[in-house]
Amino acid sequence: MDFDRYDRIRAVQWQGDHLRLLDQRLLPQEERWIDCASAAQVTQAIKDLAVRGAPAIGIAAAWGVVLAARQGEPLDAALAMLRAARPTAVNLMWALDRMKARIAAGADAAALEREAQAIQDEDLAANRHMGELGAALIAPHSGVLTHCNTGSLATAGFGTALGVIRAGVASGRIAQVYAGETRPWQQGARLTMWELVRDGIPAKLIADSAASHLMRSGEVQWVIVGADRIAANGDTANKIGTYQLAIAARHHGVKFMVVAPSSTVDMATASGEDIEIELRDATELLAVAGRRTVVEGAEAWNPVFDVTPAALIDAIVTEKGVIERPTPQAMQAMFGR
Amino acid sequence: MDFDRYDRIRAVQWQGDHLRLLDQRLLPQEERWIDCASAAQVTQAIKDLAVRGAPAIGIAAAWGVVLAARQGEPLDAALAMLRAARPTAVNLMWALDRMKARIAAGADAAALEREAQAIQDEDLAANRHMGELGAALIAPHSGVLTHCNTGSLATAGFGTALGVIRAGVASGRIAQVYAGETRPWQQGARLTMWELVRDGIPAKLIADSAASHLMRSGEVQWVIVGADRIAANGDTANKIGTYQLAIAARHHGVKFMVVAPSSTVDMATASGEDIEIELRDATELLAVAGRRTVVEGAEAWNPVFDVTPAALIDAIVTEKGVIERPTPQAMQAMFGR
Repeated sequence: MDFDRYDRIRAVQWQGDHLRLLDQRLLPQEERWIDCASAAQVTQAIKDLAVRGAPAIGIAAAWGVVLAARQGEPLDAALAMLRAARPTAVNLMWALDRMKARIAAGADAAALEREAQAIQDEDLAANRHMGELGAALIAPHSGVLTHCNTGSLATAGFGTALGVIRAGVASGRIAQVYAGETRPWQQGARLTMWELVRDGIPAKLIADSAASHLMRSGEVQWVIVGADRIAANGDTANKIGTYQLAIAARHHGVKFMVVAPSSTVDMATASGEDIEIELRDATELLAVAGRRTVVEGAEAWNPVFDVTPAALIDAIVTEKGVIERPTPQAMQAMFGR
Repeated sequence: MDFDRYDRIRAVQWQGDHLRLLDQRLLPQEERWIDCASAAQVTQAIKDLAVRGAPAIGIAAAWGVVLAARQGEPLDAALAMLRAARPTAVNLMWALDRMKARIAAGADAAALEREAQAIQDEDLAANRHMGELGAALIAPHSGVLTHCNTGSLATAGFGTALGVIRAGVASGRIAQVYAGETRPWQQGARLTMWELVRDGIPAKLIADSAASHLMRSGEVQWVIVGADRIAANGDTANKIGTYQLAIAARHHGVKFMVVAPSSTVDMATASGEDIEIELRDATELLAVAGRRTVVEGAEAWNPVFDVTPAALIDAIVTEKGVIERPTPQAMQAMFGR
């Protein structure tokens, strides 16, 4: 498959002595890079959403540990600081646990650098493999709907759900892509459309609330999304709105696919009930581009993730393989120790 | 019931020789009024969404006919021009048909003015009556979710769905209101929150895609929406996203109420399949507040209404009464000739 045509964006770049991050808050208007020379700067970039997407957060955090080691900072403190940057993305914890294990084994800065590079390289390889696995589930000439951004910007490259879409387009299985805006942060409008237009993939933006009307029209056969955490029973935490799409998909007989590296699977979390949902500041809903759009005195409720029950998921795609109609047993067989 | 406390906004005001419209594009930042001295100006205000909301559009159009009559314009041309301003709202056609019948009966400008005033007064009375009918369906201390703006701004006053919410709050049946943003035009964020905050009603804004997560939390017992057209079988066209809320409500056992004056019922339209859905310009999704937010070259699909099948509706409330679980038979009994 012609991967390279669809894999030209790298948003997290190690520069030998510092980390370069493409500032995702400014896209698509501006491509500005942030240079991080310390773990504290990486932590801030994660908190501020300059870098976002569960796999990309994990990779950036691993490089944050490398920066701390190079500067002789206390590594326990760096790990704790990075771990607290975002609560929902389990890849963050997973990447930091990998770094912590190397630290415990006595790794020096050079060895930690190799570990961070391995995490990044493995993520890209996993995405390309998932792309093939996921695309194989899709009938030729299908329409698909995606949510949020799960592409090269959210990962080491190629993407998770957007990787499946890239592979599906490359192989002629996907003829038309629809992307939901993904309020309030507009990841679909700003980031996914930027990636799709750059790659010349036929794509249309929709309001998040137009998804059911679209499904009713028969134009989409699959909803394809990423994940921030997958519990041991297959329940999946992802960007707010994912759960609503899963309900609508089931209502219309549209299939629903979750694509994520196995590092997103958290077998220590029994079900979605146990996943902490991050609430972000109400101002994200009360202002647009810094301009107040809602009357003064108004309140807002701004959960940024939700949980899609396994029962609404037709396929979970990881680099280890595909689980159709996930059950705790199938999850245990693939991801248990 | 203490209506007056919750009925202080008048967005469509006849001034004796011209029509004043509160420009809904500028709220909540600015309360600017538009003075219309001709039917053409009223038509433009409807097209530009300066006045919006199905009942308010119908009322404004009726005054547009009065302006044409006062200026001695050909009334057939004025009727045709106003009729073409928005395709989905049936109240527009209904109000113009009422004016047309008076014209056919030989009414002069003064008689047409009385007819337009009657349309406006009847709408306000209908809203107050619907408020009582709809609120009576709601158990005490309920939470409700609404979509778009159906309040005083969208009607002669008090509102349809928002009128039920006002009556429910006044009578202690509703303890908490949630309002969806309503992308792309943000009627919920800009207009409904403005009305609710002005009235001191406990309200929280949510992203449209957070509705299912909210319903799962058990915080809402009813979704309450307006309508742009109700077909003879109860299928209801309303703001894009309404259909998605109805699917989610049914999935969670949350009740779904449609509130609209009987002028919204179109017995000549057999079902939702026959309702024309207005597509608006893609730029509404590609820019926010005049600032491009999506990469150049991107396409968008921007339907602004959708159809909720009668099977997903628990109650249709009009000033003629309540139809629970609407059927063609029940619709015919209440609205047939």
